[in-house]
Amino acid sequence: MSRRAATARKVLLTGFDPFGGETINPSWEAVRGLDGEDIAGHRIVATCLPTEFGRSRRALRAAIARAEPGIVLCVGQAGGRAALSIERVAINVDDARIPDNAGRQPVDRPIIADAPAAYFATLPIKSMLTALQGAGVPAEISQTAGTFVCNHVFFALMHALASRRTCRGGFVHIPYLPEQAARHPGAPGLALETVQRGLRILIETAATTRRDRRIAAGATH
Amino acid sequence: MSRRAATARKVLLTGFDPFGGETINPSWEAVRGLDGEDIAGHRIVATCLPTEFGRSRRALRAAIARAEPGIVLCVGQAGGRAALSIERVAINVDDARIPDNAGRQPVDRPIIADAPAAYFATLPIKSMLTALQGAGVPAEISQTAGTFVCNHVFFALMHALASRRTCRGGFVHIPYLPEQAARHPGAPGLALETVQRGLRILIETAATTRRDRRIAAGATH
Amino acid sequence: MSRRAATARKVLLTGFDPFGGETINPSWEAVRGLDGEDIAGHRIVATCLPTEFGRSRRALRAAIARAEPGIVLCVGQAGGRAALSIERVAINVDDARIPDNAGRQPVDRPIIADAPAAYFATLPIKSMLTALQGAGVPAEISQTAGTFVCNHVFFALMHALASRRTCRGGFVHIPYLPEQAARHPGAPGLALETVQRGLRILIETAATTRRDRRIAAGATH
Amino acid sequence: MSRRAATARKVLLTGFDPFGGETINPSWEAVRGLDGEDIAGHRIVATCLPTEFGRSRRALRAAIARAEPGIVLCVGQAGGRAALSIERVAINVDDARIPDNAGRQPVDRPIIADAPAAYFATLPIKSMLTALQGAGVPAEISQTAGTFVCNHVFFALMHALASRRTCRGGFVHIPYLPEQAARHPGAPGLALETVQRGLRILIETAATTRRDRRIAAGATH
Repeated sequence: MSRRAATARKVLLTGFDPFGGETINPSWEAVRGLDGEDIAGHRIVATCLPTEFGRSRRALRAAIARAEPGIVLCVGQAGGRAALSIERVAINVDDARIPDNAGRQPVDRPIIADAPAAYFATLPIKSMLTALQGAGVPAEISQTAGTFVCNHVFFALMHALASRRTCRGGFVHIPYLPEQAARHPGAPGLALETVQRGLRILIETAATTRRDRRIAAGATH
Repeated sequence: MSRRAATARKVLLTGFDPFGGETINPSWEAVRGLDGEDIAGHRIVATCLPTEFGRSRRALRAAIARAEPGIVLCVGQAGGRAALSIERVAINVDDARIPDNAGRQPVDRPIIADAPAAYFATLPIKSMLTALQGAGVPAEISQTAGTFVCNHVFFALMHALASRRTCRGGFVHIPYLPEQAARHPGAPGLALETVQRGLRILIETAATTRRDRRIAAGATH
Repeated sequence: MSRRAATARKVLLTGFDPFGGETINPSWEAVRGLDGEDIAGHRIVATCLPTEFGRSRRALRAAIARAEPGIVLCVGQAGGRAALSIERVAINVDDARIPDNAGRQPVDRPIIADAPAAYFATLPIKSMLTALQGAGVPAEISQTAGTFVCNHVFFALMHALASRRTCRGGFVHIPYLPEQAARHPGAPGLALETVQRGLRILIETAATTRRDRRIAAGATH
Repeated sequence: MSRRAATARKVLLTGFDPFGGETINPSWEAVRGLDGEDIAGHRIVATCLPTEFGRSRRALRAAIARAEPGIVLCVGQAGGRAALSIERVAINVDDARIPDNAGRQPVDRPIIADAPAAYFATLPIKSMLTALQGAGVPAEISQTAGTFVCNHVFFALMHALASRRTCRGGFVHIPYLPEQAARHPGAPGLALETVQRGLRILIETAATTRRDRRIAAGATH
């Protein structure tokens, strides 16, 4: 039993702390409620990352080293988006419109010098999209994770995993919670329960899918 | 007991049946779950109206005659909106972009000949807005209920109430449910629980507020 | 000659002065360029109205008294809209989110006491829509002119015309100019030339159309 | 004189032919009108690329070989965007929601096998943004060029230039023309003249700017 636990595969699931004037971050609200759950033979380990350039990716690296996961799914807030937004690609640049939680605001700076310009997610994003839609959870593929701390962490994740063939990774943006949307006229709000149901589906699909489906979900521009 | 029931004030709460290719209508899903509840001394009577010009307003009139309510709140689906959208005004025109559920598609036809061009809601819409926002439910004042069956019913409601000083009325549009939004890329989806919590707040506020607050919630255009 | 001029039918075309932090108002920029033109036997008289509750409608009434027009078309800025937006209905309420140019910000106040709740435009809005679309000018029917000074003037116009059977009236909202849009990220900008071409088509259609077309151009909500 | 012409630096400016049911493509309409112009000591050479995977990038390579330009700016249509949208990054994937003009619809296929995951534009995109805004042309930095033929060509361009230190390149998406927008309700339309003025500014800025400005123009998500 203890042996089995010791060898159980792990999913590292990360959220962020609040930023940009919000008092909560829906990513951490959603993620922390799943900590310790077992999904498709994987134990979920939830971690909260600081919304700070630099510190966030060091915290992520430390969490990966601790958990030795087979899957890493990072989750971040995308106020204004309406759906669970599965990111396709992380790009090697920071360009911050607002300061991070430490007051830093890098502009057009590589995240990691001498690293590639971008990494694609290695999770089966199209199968994940299909699974969410089939379960009635609003979902989409996104072609950009922006240039703020979310993309920063996503890029650092994929860079770290580039040398680890045994671990796959990806990123999903989530909408405001309804109580946040209530303060942002016009912005969609998705219920915590719906987001958590979606995250469970994403993890199960990632855990059980080796070969992604080929379904068109691109953008004409 | 029977006496008390006989004298209890009623709230007539209406939803619609599905239209436009949907298999559910969130308005009826939300409304029917509240049937029989007591809120601020009012008993909720829920009724489903057909999404049809003409038949819908006859069904509404019949429901008003049966329930003799002190408050009528009609609820309709507004796919694409993100918030509980409290309508300010109903206008005396049908102009249907799509056929109703009976296949009729009136264009630029008065709803009721010789009736006024418009009626304002008589519920305290600004107090209702404030109450929703304070409770963390996404909400807004809307300056138009469109020109389809929702506006048709809203106009017919206010016309019927114009001669009854003892009953106040209004209309609220609600977003898609998440499972509907999952089939409409980019459209917001609000959870049934959030909508129902919002409807309870709207009814309580309407029941307990005589004089509306003066808070700016207009539109520059 | 002077006789002919004296009896020529007139179109009163109004724009507004800048508001809300803008240094120009596209409505007046467009309108003043058409002053004195002859379209379908009508002479255009252009007037600039102040973006102020009260003063704007007194200025409008004075301009109508001076010009004795057969057609009045009021034009206003709708920053964020993408098309020439032909308004269907004016409602009898002021609800200002921002102060007008005199610093006044009325909330939920009737524009004219004892006047009807609303007036419909008496210009052939569907024929005007069709004519614009046929000429390649972005156009739409709008079900609300908002609750700021534009709606205020539109309502006052239709109230003034209600007792004059010889004059028809309406309102059209126009987008930002490109140079304004350049300062409002995401907002559409329509070229002055396109707007003016559209206004000429609107006036010609209004002047030559007695019976409007019945074409669906409503909104489901 | 002929000698000078022979050694004059060139700007290769490309547009696309119509796709997706349109009868014109604003990119080629705008670009062809600038053919032969001289801007900041550079002669513009305009070329039309087919909206086809594969053929488009071969046509681009041939045009580069012919013109031997110092700058390449590719221009494409982005129906629904409101501004001149300067692209930051091209990614190595085709994912077509609609078939290209040859009926092909690749899904999740690398554009160039063994090439990097992405390339950043090498033109001074922030200086270009600032110049457009200063001239009153609606402009923005875009973090994704999509996954259709525009991104395909942009990626192929940057891959071709990666081995040519003497030539810099980039991509700009432009809105519909007003006559196109007239057929797409809600979509912005920007006048041809405004687009062409913008393109001249982009080329002049690219030609005269060696070191880009550091101005925040990223996206939080």
